[in-house]
Amino acid sequence: MKPAISVITLGVSDMANSVRFYRDGLGLPTRASEKDQIAFFEMKGTMLALFPRHELAVDANISPAGSGFAGITLSHNVSSMKEVDDLISTIRKIGGNVVKVPQETAWGGYGSYFADPDGYLWEVVYNPKWKVDEEGLVIRNTD
Amino acid sequence: MKPAISVITLGVSDMANSVRFYRDGLGLPTRASEKDQIAFFEMKGTMLALFPRHELAVDANISPAGSGFAGITLSHNVSSMKEVDDLISTIRKIGGNVVKVPQETAWGGYGSYFADPDGYLWEVVYNPKWKVDEEGLVIRNTD
Repeated sequence: MKPAISVITLGVSDMANSVRFYRDGLGLPTRASEKDQIAFFEMKGTMLALFPRHELAVDANISPAGSGFAGITLSHNVSSMKEVDDLISTIRKIGGNVVKVPQETAWGGYGSYFADPDGYLWEVVYNPKWKVDEEGLVIRNTD
Repeated sequence: MKPAISVITLGVSDMANSVRFYRDGLGLPTRASEKDQIAFFEMKGTMLALFPRHELAVDANISPAGSGFAGITLSHNVSSMKEVDDLISTIRKIGGNVVKVPQETAWGGYGSYFADPDGYLWEVVYNPKWKVDEEGLVIRNTD
């Protein structure tokens, strides 16, 4: 297996609402409209997709039943504490749910979490030990 | 927000078992050992991380309660139907749970799903309309 995740798909309850949140709110690039059955976002590296939750379960041949913490988080690393604060300010403006306000972390970083319309968790985080390249992907110096 | 997911973190119930599954079974590159509190995998694009599920919920400031379908899938795109079959053969050998056997899809592709030790779903898929680059990331020609 090549070391790559090609696409991360979030199973959403309201496609139009989620497309607006990611496209208009967060400004992620996409050719998708609110009416599409699947929406792809042109990310650097791994692509993000939105697809109706029920259909995603059907596609995977499993029960769609499920609730509570998904067990998965997505992190968006930035290059400074200020960038964390600025992005979280944007999240508040677009009606995102900030579930952990920006704060210092036990490991020497600074971060926050917000939930998307379906409750999927995004961490916005500054790790002073990691470099983030121009495309927003991490270059690890140490761990 | 830059269009990039830096890290996807899977909250796992047994770190050592999951590290072995991804590192030894799937062969994903990492410097992590079974005893680490967090394991990072050096992927192209979005990095994969494993972290204890309960601690991940604590980090995000939410309840760890949750069950059933996580609502999220990870896709690993390959360049041929044979590559799908070959990777799924490997999954069977390492004790992975194939939840959807390789088959043609309604949209003209060929794919399969397997579940990792915690039930997180990976799609292994060939989309004849998409090109997969040498690093395993997708170049979309059309949608």
